[in-house]
Amino acid sequence: MVVVNGQPTDLISVHDRGLQYGDGLFETIAVIDGKAQHWELHMLRLARGCERLSIPFPGTEQLAADVDALAIDHQRHALKIIVTRGASLRGYRPPDSPQTTRIVYSLPWPDYPATNAEHGVTVRLCSGRLSSNPQTAGIKHLNRLEQVLARGEWGDPAIVEGLMLDNHGNLVEATMSNVFLVANGHLHTPDLSSCGVAGIMREIVLRECRSAAISVHIRTITWDDVWQADELFLTNSLIGLWPVRRLVTPQEQRDFAAPTLTRELRARLRDSLPDHVA
Amino acid sequence: MVVVNGQPTDLISVHDRGLQYGDGLFETIAVIDGKAQHWELHMLRLARGCERLSIPFPGTEQLAADVDALAIDHQRHALKIIVTRGASLRGYRPPDSPQTTRIVYSLPWPDYPATNAEHGVTVRLCSGRLSSNPQTAGIKHLNRLEQVLARGEWGDPAIVEGLMLDNHGNLVEATMSNVFLVANGHLHTPDLSSCGVAGIMREIVLRECRSAAISVHIRTITWDDVWQADELFLTNSLIGLWPVRRLVTPQEQRDFAAPTLTRELRARLRDSLPDHVA
Repeated sequence: MVVVNGQPTDLISVHDRGLQYGDGLFETIAVIDGKAQHWELHMLRLARGCERLSIPFPGTEQLAADVDALAIDHQRHALKIIVTRGASLRGYRPPDSPQTTRIVYSLPWPDYPATNAEHGVTVRLCSGRLSSNPQTAGIKHLNRLEQVLARGEWGDPAIVEGLMLDNHGNLVEATMSNVFLVANGHLHTPDLSSCGVAGIMREIVLRECRSAAISVHIRTITWDDVWQADELFLTNSLIGLWPVRRLVTPQEQRDFAAPTLTRELRARLRDSLPDHVA
Repeated sequence: MVVVNGQPTDLISVHDRGLQYGDGLFETIAVIDGKAQHWELHMLRLARGCERLSIPFPGTEQLAADVDALAIDHQRHALKIIVTRGASLRGYRPPDSPQTTRIVYSLPWPDYPATNAEHGVTVRLCSGRLSSNPQTAGIKHLNRLEQVLARGEWGDPAIVEGLMLDNHGNLVEATMSNVFLVANGHLHTPDLSSCGVAGIMREIVLRECRSAAISVHIRTITWDDVWQADELFLTNSLIGLWPVRRLVTPQEQRDFAAPTLTRELRARLRDSLPDHVA
């Protein structure tokens, strides 16, 4: 079921600016036993995204009511929330008083194999690059053509993710997840002030590290840094935290040794990961 | 009226990838006395955009049939055509066999004052920048948040357009139009191989110049080039060709002298401009 502005329907106007221009934001949230995981963090990011785009934030209570209206009783599902600037006539100019559109619906829990989290996954390097724009960096807006094209680069189901670089050749993220690397016993993750989505699971890793006094360097990460890392792992709200076992490029491939620090971190974060009730 | 995949409706699925990711393209076409102006050029650009995004092109005949189904009898209107990769389940990965969505509708002709074309317009410099990505440059895709944010920078109706620069500070285009400048008797327009939309009216100007042996330099144009230009003009399919009379920045403003070469070009292009039957 889909709820649009509180009403059960899976249709929206063709004049909605979400379709017309990608003028909106979204969240993808893990729901386990009826509880939306990390709801407050998702709402915080959505509110910040709305603020950045000058879209009125519908409010946490309103969105929670929309989610309740879905009346989902699956033990586990993925919740998607889209907020757009609403419909308007022709032209890029944002309306002075936009009537935002709220779209809330549930999707089946993705059936990722448990081995992904336990033994790690194979990732590739995408040739498509992520463009830089500090104005829209970090937020989860609806302009996702770069991710679509990058995800379209491969069909091999053995490869689960693709790393993406910026125009300078530095690591930003993967198509649907954030990336951390371990080098010399320290954690590193790309600075996302110019491009990329600041994921909620990334935020949770950063918070855990802060509270456990594990140092994380948020910085520019070159391709050499990635290639020479001791460990690599991916995060997002639905996958949790997956170690990378193999990295494939058009020229070569590299296998990673046992992900020691990654496993330690997984154990620490156990209660925050969506697979903790697997 | 709106026609979606040949059927009269103004609703589309929330699962359409046009909304989800901006995974599609659009065209805005001037229709005068029942005739879509420069239809072949619009279809050519749309087909090229589809090819670039690996979206099956619905075909000129199919889209022409959709337009016929609108049965518009206004003397003059704006036609909008949107083609998306269609609906799919969660995830960026493009479906192997996408069922494209075709959205076709008519909008009232914008009531631009005739003085815009005759005496020129006031434009400003936007602070929002256009990010660079050769993979999506030139085509008219649905990821238009940068244009929305730029157009949201000002409300003053006396300013009709905003110039946009890339991350290096070079001119790309205006929010909804392309830009040409005249310097030392020659025409210059930005190279759009890294970002920007290659407009149909821009193409018509370039073709006219080619056939009349007027040299046009398609190149990197710095802000200094813009500031020191003798003339500046804007093009798009609905406005035709508008001289710039005044350029405003946060620091200063500059008035342009009589747009001699621009007027000469307007006269040459008379039959190709949408205001020729005004």
